Amino acid sequence: MLVQELDTPSLIVDLDVMEANLRRVADYAKQHSLRLRPHTKTHKSIGLARRQIALGAAGLTVAKVTEAEVMAAANPADLLVAYPVFGAPKLRRLTEVARRTKVAVALDSLASATPLSEAAVIASVDIGVMVEVDVGLGRVGVQPAEALALAQTIAALPNLHFRGLTFYPGHIKQPTEALVKALSDTVEKLVQDFHDAGLPPEIVSGGSTPALFHSHKVKGLTEIRPGTYIFNDLNTVHSGACTLEDCAASILTTVVSTRPGHMIIDGGSKTFSSDRLTTGAAGHGRLLEAPGAFFHKMNEEHGFVDLSKAERSFEVGEKVRVIPNHVCVAVNLHEQVYGVRGGRVEEAWKVDARGKLQ
Amino acid sequence: MLVQELDTPSLIVDLDVMEANLRRVADYAKQHSLRLRPHTKTHKSIGLARRQIALGAAGLTVAKVTEAEVMAAANPADLLVAYPVFGAPKLRRLTEVARRTKVAVALDSLASATPLSEAAVIASVDIGVMVEVDVGLGRVGVQPAEALALAQTIAALPNLHFRGLTFYPGHIKQPTEALVKALSDTVEKLVQDFHDAGLPPEIVSGGSTPALFHSHKVKGLTEIRPGTYIFNDLNTVHSGACTLEDCAASILTTVVSTRPGHMIIDGGSKTFSSDRLTTGAAGHGRLLEAPGAFFHKMNEEHGFVDLSKAERSFEVGEKVRVIPNHVCVAVNLHEQVYGVRGGRVEEAWKVDARGKLQ
Repeated sequence: MLVQELDTPSLIVDLDVMEANLRRVADYAKQHSLRLRPHTKTHKSIGLARRQIALGAAGLTVAKVTEAEVMAAANPADLLVAYPVFGAPKLRRLTEVARRTKVAVALDSLASATPLSEAAVIASVDIGVMVEVDVGLGRVGVQPAEALALAQTIAALPNLHFRGLTFYPGHIKQPTEALVKALSDTVEKLVQDFHDAGLPPEIVSGGSTPALFHSHKVKGLTEIRPGTYIFNDLNTVHSGACTLEDCAASILTTVVSTRPGHMIIDGGSKTFSSDRLTTGAAGHGRLLEAPGAFFHKMNEEHGFVDLSKAERSFEVGEKVRVIPNHVCVAVNLHEQVYGVRGGRVEEAWKVDARGKLQ
Repeated sequence: MLVQELDTPSLIVDLDVMEANLRRVADYAKQHSLRLRPHTKTHKSIGLARRQIALGAAGLTVAKVTEAEVMAAANPADLLVAYPVFGAPKLRRLTEVARRTKVAVALDSLASATPLSEAAVIASVDIGVMVEVDVGLGRVGVQPAEALALAQTIAALPNLHFRGLTFYPGHIKQPTEALVKALSDTVEKLVQDFHDAGLPPEIVSGGSTPALFHSHKVKGLTEIRPGTYIFNDLNTVHSGACTLEDCAASILTTVVSTRPGHMIIDGGSKTFSSDRLTTGAAGHGRLLEAPGAFFHKMNEEHGFVDLSKAERSFEVGEKVRVIPNHVCVAVNLHEQVYGVRGGRVEEAWKVDARGKLQ
């Protein structure tokens, strides 16, 4: 089937570009002796997780217990739930996953670690713990000075074992040498404190896609957890971690209405998500067939495209491809993805971990 | 089960409030002799569509052919696909729906009507057509002066029959008497032109939730298609069409991390959607347990809540309910909805038409 024959809106992935993205990061991790533990939230696909493992990934990362249940099917050697787990329903499911595969949870409080330990005791499983440290984003994570005390307490809790440190440098949207140096200083001191206290972390895990190729400059870092790099998106381009040509995913849409200098496409917030660009700039995506077009507004099923500076005009019924601002949330809105090569649909895969809110 | 026992994040609906919302609008429509054809995009549930029909709805509205396939199960007397339908796959599916129920499509071009007529001929079905008119939003729709010519051409196409006019006054976010008067003048003149030309529209259909209770002031209007009114949301409150107490839907979340004056809840853009308020104001939802809290930022799985002006503090593991900015896109992110009454979960229903992008 030709790409142009797909019904719209459909999420399509250029397989050549995706494969190059996967290789580039696998090679970078090998070159710098960093463990690569990709965050699967971007693709949410068991098949793509398997490809990441085949290329040398040391494990996988997920955000939710329900995602862990899905990704256990990819047989990761080491599965990280990068989110504090609360409540009996989630703890029960987590212990079930821990029977099938080696699991660690990233958390930042004893209020989270204590019930986790109790659940692990009840279920007779061992669960690893990574202490989450806030390195500047102000989201989850203890302050660096508090990490050691929390880790020491956790190390003494039954059926938990302290495995190391996690952080997410999400405050670094456009890496500079100064930002990377500050991050490195924080991490280096943190790791030194743990060594001095006789509790050396087995793993020191950080790294987002924007800061990805600066990871080797962060002293003490042993693992990276990028997610977006498999597809990339406009935010990744603006971060400097890739070029537009490295964006593998786009959304195929149909022009459904036109007026002079303007058109409506059949994709809106239900198709792209309404995530803005991290730069704060306006616009909801880049049209591959007319990069000068301005995708300025969305309703749920309608995309508003200003063509006054576009390279060409469009007629109703024509199909156009749009690179999204933020591919992770866009993937979550689609049931399946079409892998394309040279204008042909080569494969289709299900978004296995779509939804999975709990 | 108690509401507080639900795993999070979960979408909950206060059944007393929802039932009052349904009755209020059904009564309003009856009082003013307006056909009520609710847009099902808000709830996406066959069961709730049946309740709307039981309360007197003359039919249902959907945005997509795949939604029409789902909502045909509610046995509407008249089903409107309020979106131009393009491409053989969608046209084939639409003709299948047309065998099961009376269907009309809202469209704004001959480029859309001609293949629709051809598909109807091939499949030996009759399909109604509503001519979509742009009354100010600048989305889909012909200009009022062009509507008659398009309708006359469509009326002559085989297996299509012209049934009337649709418009969506989405530009009216906060109705004023002047805005409603301008809309009424446009619609009144339009309808008069059709009567003068001997092509009286059977149905003149408009009405969004924000402008809902002004519908009786629009001369010539015979049908309203509100969607959001069943649940309401912060945008509806800001439009003046409801109060905060009329918001039936909220999202139950858990506090997963705290620091002084701030907390993180386990719902972000994957749970609420990243739709901003139509007023342009900041904030991603209103916390029922602390209305002074400011839900200022979201990542996919994290909600950032500033508590510096909140009525109370929170501990990790506590559950809080949040009214979303825009409930339609939030419902689309959930697999199921929990109907609650008096602190207890009374029923749960599947979001039957979730996704359904094509």
